[in-house]
Amino acid sequence: MNSPVSALHTDKYQITMMYAHFKNGSHLKRRAFDLYFRSLPFGNGYVVFTGLERVIHYIENLHFTEEDIEYIASLDDQFDTAFLDMLRSFRFTGDIWAVPEGTIVFPEEPLLHIQGTIMELQLIETALLNFIGYQSLIATKAARIRHIVGDDLLLEFGTRRAQEKDAAVWGARSAYIGGFNATSNLLAGKQFGIPVSGTHAHAWVQDFDHELDAFRAYASAFPNQTILLVDTYDTLKSGVPHAIQVGLEMKKQGKKLLGIRLDSGDLAYLSKKARHMLDQAGLTDTKIVASSDLDEHTILHLKSQGAKIDSWGVGTKLITAYDKPALGAVYKMVARLEHDHWMPTLKISSNPAKISTPGLKSLYRIIDKRTGKARADFITLLEEKIDPKKTLVLFHPQQTFKRKKVKNFTAIPLHRAIFKKGQRVYAIPTLEEVKKYHQTQLSLFWEEYLRILNPEEYPVDLSKKLWNSRQTLIKEIYEQIKHELEE
Amino acid sequence: MNSPVSALHTDKYQITMMYAHFKNGSHLKRRAFDLYFRSLPFGNGYVVFTGLERVIHYIENLHFTEEDIEYIASLDDQFDTAFLDMLRSFRFTGDIWAVPEGTIVFPEEPLLHIQGTIMELQLIETALLNFIGYQSLIATKAARIRHIVGDDLLLEFGTRRAQEKDAAVWGARSAYIGGFNATSNLLAGKQFGIPVSGTHAHAWVQDFDHELDAFRAYASAFPNQTILLVDTYDTLKSGVPHAIQVGLEMKKQGKKLLGIRLDSGDLAYLSKKARHMLDQAGLTDTKIVASSDLDEHTILHLKSQGAKIDSWGVGTKLITAYDKPALGAVYKMVARLEHDHWMPTLKISSNPAKISTPGLKSLYRIIDKRTGKARADFITLLEEKIDPKKTLVLFHPQQTFKRKKVKNFTAIPLHRAIFKKGQRVYAIPTLEEVKKYHQTQLSLFWEEYLRILNPEEYPVDLSKKLWNSRQTLIKEIYEQIKHELEE
Repeated sequence: MNSPVSALHTDKYQITMMYAHFKNGSHLKRRAFDLYFRSLPFGNGYVVFTGLERVIHYIENLHFTEEDIEYIASLDDQFDTAFLDMLRSFRFTGDIWAVPEGTIVFPEEPLLHIQGTIMELQLIETALLNFIGYQSLIATKAARIRHIVGDDLLLEFGTRRAQEKDAAVWGARSAYIGGFNATSNLLAGKQFGIPVSGTHAHAWVQDFDHELDAFRAYASAFPNQTILLVDTYDTLKSGVPHAIQVGLEMKKQGKKLLGIRLDSGDLAYLSKKARHMLDQAGLTDTKIVASSDLDEHTILHLKSQGAKIDSWGVGTKLITAYDKPALGAVYKMVARLEHDHWMPTLKISSNPAKISTPGLKSLYRIIDKRTGKARADFITLLEEKIDPKKTLVLFHPQQTFKRKKVKNFTAIPLHRAIFKKGQRVYAIPTLEEVKKYHQTQLSLFWEEYLRILNPEEYPVDLSKKLWNSRQTLIKEIYEQIKHELEE
Repeated sequence: MNSPVSALHTDKYQITMMYAHFKNGSHLKRRAFDLYFRSLPFGNGYVVFTGLERVIHYIENLHFTEEDIEYIASLDDQFDTAFLDMLRSFRFTGDIWAVPEGTIVFPEEPLLHIQGTIMELQLIETALLNFIGYQSLIATKAARIRHIVGDDLLLEFGTRRAQEKDAAVWGARSAYIGGFNATSNLLAGKQFGIPVSGTHAHAWVQDFDHELDAFRAYASAFPNQTILLVDTYDTLKSGVPHAIQVGLEMKKQGKKLLGIRLDSGDLAYLSKKARHMLDQAGLTDTKIVASSDLDEHTILHLKSQGAKIDSWGVGTKLITAYDKPALGAVYKMVARLEHDHWMPTLKISSNPAKISTPGLKSLYRIIDKRTGKARADFITLLEEKIDPKKTLVLFHPQQTFKRKKVKNFTAIPLHRAIFKKGQRVYAIPTLEEVKKYHQTQLSLFWEEYLRILNPEEYPVDLSKKLWNSRQTLIKEIYEQIKHELEE
């Protein structure tokens, strides 16, 4: 499905910490980490979780080659031979739970929960953040664009502007999950079965003495799927008239000019003019495809101006997540196994929003039975059970006075077991299944959470027990610091 | 050196055009393309060209596997078997000239000039734009940051926030060329021999009951290169005092605490306080490393506030080119070989800045012999010779009244032959050579072109002959369009 990722796709300090644990004798101690993000990109109300398939392949193939070990041995750190030997047989042996790809997720939710030896949990951090951060970002951007275009055809055209090869390929996959219909990237088409799409470029037209000859030659090569790029010289004076001429010639032969593509200029004006010209010529079935630095904002404006565009090709601004090119996913230790007992652990920060939520946790989506819509997400301690017969009290983890009571609900667990003791226990869904699941996920949410400008904040609440555990731990750590300083 | 890139790392429309040419009988016609960009990112005065090594490996390995061909055959386009058979033996057979990696380059300059069959030139477009666009962007961002930090140590920490795996690896390489000293990415370290760097994370500290124990254990694992992260709980009350304690213990054993790392909070304030505390304790050699959402702007401000930081770890904002995450490189047909004669060709646009420069061209850097500094870049027709004994008249291609005369100059050709008839004729320089070449390139330019805010526009001029040829062609095309419409 995709080429394995090297164990060295990681930060140096992960190896450094693995070694320090090894020297300290603590490298095989069991720990638990959560992967989550703290804030939403693009001013959006949610994130579309993707990247899990890539993570699964990475974990399944994770090992150090002899070359890798040679390289590590060559570094200045003077690693013990025993440590290098251990790397030779290194495999991931831990447990991973995750939300499925396509899930609508929110800040502070544990998207992945991982248990294993501290050594292996350190090693994988960087790759996991890299895969999930980028892919979720692109799926989210794609969902925003889909939200604006309604049922129009959406084409992902970003490969040439993507941040190197993998971004093009995995970005195309994420865009497809987030609502795009096709990609221009052939490798993504081959690897994932995404429909591929594309017509011709300006160079095709430039290669002929006359635009009309270029269009005719193209139509003859693709009699059943001719889309003509009409802006190489002059859209309305040259491109559209020539396309119409070819369209009429095709019609006589019982064929159809599928579409024309606009790639520059005032797309609102040009599309209306072109639509009118096509219709006047009787080519009412010929579609108009537009591309040229589009995103959800330009498309919204074009639509509000009555642009006659049936299909949108989106490149740079989707594939690079142009207005917010990184999702600040983080990976924090939440518990340490000591004498068979999981001790919650915490990262303190002077910024309260950066304090992590300790302990092993479950994540539920609370669905109102009367409406079928999501009321809130609810994070509990792992051992807690939610009794759907009882009233659930939700409160804001920071502003605890904000409370609401929920009755008549279903609590859907969002985590799936992916790996148990290093073995995959999860059947990877097909890409079409992921795309469909994403659609059903969207249908759970009221429009107020989905709109792309100023969405309502969706409630993500902690159970009373989890909240108490967190408060207690924060207090304990501050007291300990104070105590140490007084010593 | 790096895993080969699939021939399918391209846009669908490249294959579509290859096929249309094949059907039209024109697929083996010889054409010439230029790769260039139209505007500068980040408000910078120049771009650092990188990506060529990746392009070379791609071109040398370019072929379709049986699997690739099976995939192409499976598409809806109903490609002829003869076309698919041709793909089986497809290899790049053309010629490529390029500026070397590390070169300082400007908008509208042909960075790559490529001649070959139209079919092969179409196929490679997407990958070339993808590689060169991203890598040049990151090298340029890195150069901006280097410009601000002077001789401080610069560490690339972006992997976790990079846009997928390749961006992390090739971005690290570009950052190194652009002036960084090391990367956290081990794969980049292994593949390219870049120095790797990294200490420990918060999780190391969280794994101990006491921060002091964590620091002691770390120092004992790395007695010769201990850098301690001091902000897990409270930087000034806990982290720095504990680091000092360990530093003093190390001193007694004849060792040295290399550094402390600040990763959050007010870096200006914290670094000054920490410096003071370290100095008071006699640890005047212990360096302060800072990270936390840094870029050239925040570093400039921190320096202006007197921050006591010796070394800067830069992540997200470098590796994603956060404030301008795409370089709009383009690839335009500039000439067609007809009856052994190269005919210039042009892409017209209603936007004059988007009209390409036709014909086969050379690119020179004009160096003033008295100062050793660059006066302008000069683009000529390929057959033109520059006579250094004559006065060179430079004029602005749009505002032609802007003229200046240059005497006593050297004209340095910037293009190197990379491939001839599909064979590489270029010895790939080592990464250290590229980095050094970049430094000497910088030394050719006056500070006014290099500053990161409001730099002067460096002149890139066309020779009179080239300018005339372009004007004539524009006129001809407009007349032809007019003529066709009147028919």
